[in-house]
Amino acid sequence: MDLDARIRVVPDFPVPGIPFRDVTPLLADPEALAFATRQMVRPFGSEPVDLVAGIDARGFIFGTLVARELGVGFVPLRKPGKLPYQTFSEAYVTEYSTDTLAIHVDAVPEAARVLVADDVLATGGTAAAACALVERAGGVVAGCTFLLELTALSGRAKLAGRQVHAVLAY
Amino acid sequence: MDLDARIRVVPDFPVPGIPFRDVTPLLADPEALAFATRQMVRPFGSEPVDLVAGIDARGFIFGTLVARELGVGFVPLRKPGKLPYQTFSEAYVTEYSTDTLAIHVDAVPEAARVLVADDVLATGGTAAAACALVERAGGVVAGCTFLLELTALSGRAKLAGRQVHAVLAY
Repeated sequence: MDLDARIRVVPDFPVPGIPFRDVTPLLADPEALAFATRQMVRPFGSEPVDLVAGIDARGFIFGTLVARELGVGFVPLRKPGKLPYQTFSEAYVTEYSTDTLAIHVDAVPEAARVLVADDVLATGGTAAAACALVERAGGVVAGCTFLLELTALSGRAKLAGRQVHAVLAY
Repeated sequence: MDLDARIRVVPDFPVPGIPFRDVTPLLADPEALAFATRQMVRPFGSEPVDLVAGIDARGFIFGTLVARELGVGFVPLRKPGKLPYQTFSEAYVTEYSTDTLAIHVDAVPEAARVLVADDVLATGGTAAAACALVERAGGVVAGCTFLLELTALSGRAKLAGRQVHAVLAY
């Protein structure tokens, strides 16, 4: 299935000169979304995954679907001030800003294997922070899965030593 | 299944005096989450639904699952500045703040029947804005579905005339 045909390029977003990959046409197509989910899960289907952690906010969409596909629970990694219980937090730098991500301190059972999911791997800063949070909460990072990867930004360098999978590369 | 046992009350969040209903234990339990999804869909399974619209950010989790359960596509309703293409937007008042929600102008085919999904129905301000956006984009609101409803806040009053369903009521 041609997933690329369901990703729209919006020029100059969020800043001039950036061609933004808009996944909303893919989300609106249930067959394509189910196919994309199976592709995101593919390398991780044969090894133990206990939980999927999705990154606020588009990672909630893909992470939820990946968790359901694997038959495991879902852990939200959220922007500051959104999780009600005690949290660990990690600051990180993205393509456009400095930001912080948080996890509930009791979100991950000791040594649980957690797959980190998001829509896009860009600089890798967000995903690296997500992995650090999973480990601070007591989990083991089973890998990272993305719908698409912006290879020019070398995000995999920040995830060295981890199993990283992206369905599409630009 | 006892969904209520998987919702944790966190006192004084986001402000003193508010007992926050934390759904993260439910999200971590795949059987309970699948059961909750089926309950959210139940009244809408026999009538036509073409798309599910989920509200940023926890509504992305439940909305995605509801869309998958119904076999239809998903439309994200987002906070300002997050959707890359042209948008319609609606300001609204919540229990704690004034906020704005946006939809892509081309997110909904003409006369498509759209089910609005979110985790919590509180004052109804967010859900009413979501319904208004679906209609501005050319859709018909098939109904609104929530995991839980805070009945003391009378959110259904802002959704008068619409089919409103919540799995749990507090």
